[in-house]
Amino acid sequence: MMHEEEPKNTSVSGLHEGLELRPPELDYIFHPRSIALVGASDHPQNTGNVLLAAFLKGGYKGGLYPVHPTLAEVMGLTCYPDLRSIPYPVDHVFVGIPAQRTPDLMHDCAAKGVRVCHFFTAGFSELGTAEGRALEMQILEIARTNGIRLIGPNSMGIYCPSSGLYLAGGLPHRSGHLGLLSQSGGNSIYLCRTAAMRGAAFSKAVSYGNGCDLDESDLLDYFSDDHDTRVITAYIEGVKNGLRFRHALRKAADAKPTILLKGGKTECGALTVRSHTGALAGSTSVWDGLIQQTGALQVDDLDELIDLALLFLYMKPPRGRRVAVVGLGGGISVFAADAFHGSGLLLPRFSEELKTKLLGMAPTAGNICDNPMDTSILFFNPDLLRRAINAISQWEGIDLVCLHLAYDIIGWDLNPLLDSGLTHQVMHTMVECTRRIKVPVCVVLHHANRPTSYEACIQDQQICWEAGLPVFLSMDKAAKALSRFITYHQKRIRLFC
Amino acid sequence: MMHEEEPKNTSVSGLHEGLELRPPELDYIFHPRSIALVGASDHPQNTGNVLLAAFLKGGYKGGLYPVHPTLAEVMGLTCYPDLRSIPYPVDHVFVGIPAQRTPDLMHDCAAKGVRVCHFFTAGFSELGTAEGRALEMQILEIARTNGIRLIGPNSMGIYCPSSGLYLAGGLPHRSGHLGLLSQSGGNSIYLCRTAAMRGAAFSKAVSYGNGCDLDESDLLDYFSDDHDTRVITAYIEGVKNGLRFRHALRKAADAKPTILLKGGKTECGALTVRSHTGALAGSTSVWDGLIQQTGALQVDDLDELIDLALLFLYMKPPRGRRVAVVGLGGGISVFAADAFHGSGLLLPRFSEELKTKLLGMAPTAGNICDNPMDTSILFFNPDLLRRAINAISQWEGIDLVCLHLAYDIIGWDLNPLLDSGLTHQVMHTMVECTRRIKVPVCVVLHHANRPTSYEACIQDQQICWEAGLPVFLSMDKAAKALSRFITYHQKRIRLFC
Repeated sequence: MMHEEEPKNTSVSGLHEGLELRPPELDYIFHPRSIALVGASDHPQNTGNVLLAAFLKGGYKGGLYPVHPTLAEVMGLTCYPDLRSIPYPVDHVFVGIPAQRTPDLMHDCAAKGVRVCHFFTAGFSELGTAEGRALEMQILEIARTNGIRLIGPNSMGIYCPSSGLYLAGGLPHRSGHLGLLSQSGGNSIYLCRTAAMRGAAFSKAVSYGNGCDLDESDLLDYFSDDHDTRVITAYIEGVKNGLRFRHALRKAADAKPTILLKGGKTECGALTVRSHTGALAGSTSVWDGLIQQTGALQVDDLDELIDLALLFLYMKPPRGRRVAVVGLGGGISVFAADAFHGSGLLLPRFSEELKTKLLGMAPTAGNICDNPMDTSILFFNPDLLRRAINAISQWEGIDLVCLHLAYDIIGWDLNPLLDSGLTHQVMHTMVECTRRIKVPVCVVLHHANRPTSYEACIQDQQICWEAGLPVFLSMDKAAKALSRFITYHQKRIRLFC
Repeated sequence: MMHEEEPKNTSVSGLHEGLELRPPELDYIFHPRSIALVGASDHPQNTGNVLLAAFLKGGYKGGLYPVHPTLAEVMGLTCYPDLRSIPYPVDHVFVGIPAQRTPDLMHDCAAKGVRVCHFFTAGFSELGTAEGRALEMQILEIARTNGIRLIGPNSMGIYCPSSGLYLAGGLPHRSGHLGLLSQSGGNSIYLCRTAAMRGAAFSKAVSYGNGCDLDESDLLDYFSDDHDTRVITAYIEGVKNGLRFRHALRKAADAKPTILLKGGKTECGALTVRSHTGALAGSTSVWDGLIQQTGALQVDDLDELIDLALLFLYMKPPRGRRVAVVGLGGGISVFAADAFHGSGLLLPRFSEELKTKLLGMAPTAGNICDNPMDTSILFFNPDLLRRAINAISQWEGIDLVCLHLAYDIIGWDLNPLLDSGLTHQVMHTMVECTRRIKVPVCVVLHHANRPTSYEACIQDQQICWEAGLPVFLSMDKAAKALSRFITYHQKRIRLFC
């Protein structure tokens, strides 16, 4: 069986050979030629087995060697009683055995010439005990002495779909251009799944837990130089070395848009951080000041991180802050106005000339022919909708168009309409006419709570991002992300002029 | 056919006969014995037809009389060329003809002895023209002279599922205990659909648009006295008469929890309000002051309105602000701590005694045995989960328990687990043990974005609210709603002590 044999030359870092761009130093950790899983078992819910299944399903091409004291086979693969018994070289070791037994394993790793150890195993400094801290120091020392890099402990490891590496089950196989470093495994898993659904897949993600060796600074540094990564994202609970971090963050933010989410910004959150990854959350004002100095961006939750990342992947910087909002619904248009204005964006009133044009297309009653424009009457008339969007986008008074559709505010019984593909039709109309629009365009698909609406909304999202349009899931989120995005570019222009 | 004949005694207000509680004066508008639909047509997407279909499907028991100049039949019902030709009494008229023709129709209504006219028709004061305003004054004058109450113009009308009245297609048939007055039809539709999905159905909702006759004050007054309504909710863009409104709002807030959402709180939103319903949005600081004086509650968006309403329907007031948070995931627990602390709630550290108890149930590594508690290891062990929740809820250091489940952070390939009903099992375990808990309990079901997770989350929500537990869809939303709910009760206690 393929995974039983030592692979000849499957290192994905080989992909870069012959190219002018050299991969950054740390790149080898994403391209192990073989992986041993110490702590795999015969229980399918065991994390070693979950990862093994993910590697197999995700097309990992290297050698996979489960290690268990007594089992002969795990998931169809030959199982070895210990690391030293594996007759092939091992680059990467998954550690899923109790913490007390890990120092012995580290000695085996050293003897075997292992390059990277991923400690899923928890029970180290995050316990807050002297024993936990001492054990963490002990494994770190063995690693450093023997040139082994540690991921974790208390971490989910590496996601790199182009190499077939996964840090959980059910993660997308498609590779993208976001890089992620995260102290939380759950947050990594959520981001990798959700961002891909929204059109922003990850190139690589590292869940580094306690970060006793490879830490936030190492990983920021790596992603700054990684050719596959266009936008860097991070979930950080605490920073080990402030000066080093500041330097790494500045380098990252200079190289690429860098978006940070901080866990433990309140007193109570900081205490939880101690128990979660053993990190010191530090002062929020110091943190905020640091972020601002480096030009990195800060967000308040996981979904906002995705919102902002989408803009960097999909949207050209608008010339200014003037937005035209076009969609269905009066009350929703009022919310749109409040949200955009409240986030520091401008919704200029349409010119008389433009209004006259629009009034020629739609009856006045029940529509709002201004900005935001309520196009209720145009919903069943794609041709008029197209003409209205074109007229608005050609007006020189705006820098950006935001189209929106709120599913569950629609007064018709939506299910038969959705069955007939109505919203997809509207979406295709919108997408088609945006191809000829010169100003940047984004889409808000919102208020889709009923199961059928939700499903339609997911499909409509894909229609949009496949056409290169970023999609937000509420007006407030769109307004917040757009405002930050525009401010970011305005600051950078000032910086370089 | 049933709807062809004049109904004998189907007025639902008859339900209150013999009861001691008398319905409030305006109650008859929710119980018309017959409805004429002026402007129904042969087009299924025509709003008159959408409502007619909803009345038929929703079991409206009175006479239904479509009116159209030439059609003999609409949706299987006899159609009349004009209102006067209907050979039966008409209580309620749906107006869906162009604005210019409505004064003549109002004269017909007067001649026919109609009691309520619902103007779906737009094209009045919201146009911002002298003609629009004059036409609105004209229909209002005819109505006042003839004792007819007007709903609208530019409105979606009345939802009262117990009478078979609907203001859109696809609205729930189940009746509940929320009352709603809303200047936006779309917002009414969204709230009625979404709140019901979340366990909070409406008793009655009125979308009153421009509100030229029946306005926010009349409706607040009605809901204050309505026996079917336990919580009043409102979406308001502008107020016609400040003094009257203040009086009505104070009466409402004294009688029941009253939750308001204001559209047009920014300068730009206020301009949009003018075009939407012709209302004057007014000063935000004056508005905020007014709300505070009356003891009503204010929210920032439609979903927050539902969140808060759920608490009033499902939760007994907690004794204080001390919350225990129990659920799966380390990073998510950090967010929970930040969210709750940030909203002014307290997450006391567990006592040593309680920690020792919990440590006896779960291994330390990979769990957080403090507040918030990360129960990752307990996910597959309902018995341990139950014992942990029991131990925590018996601790006297807390006033409230918040259980949570974040679907898409779970590292296992979720689809097969969901297929096997895993989350429903966890939910049933949680629900079952909360039956014996004395402190109030709420649930957060969050991070459920993938279609299968979303579906499971919807079903799990229902398991919870059927067992009397309010469910929130994010930690931030839960924290915000709980904090407001507790503050509301603390203020009322101070008021009455």
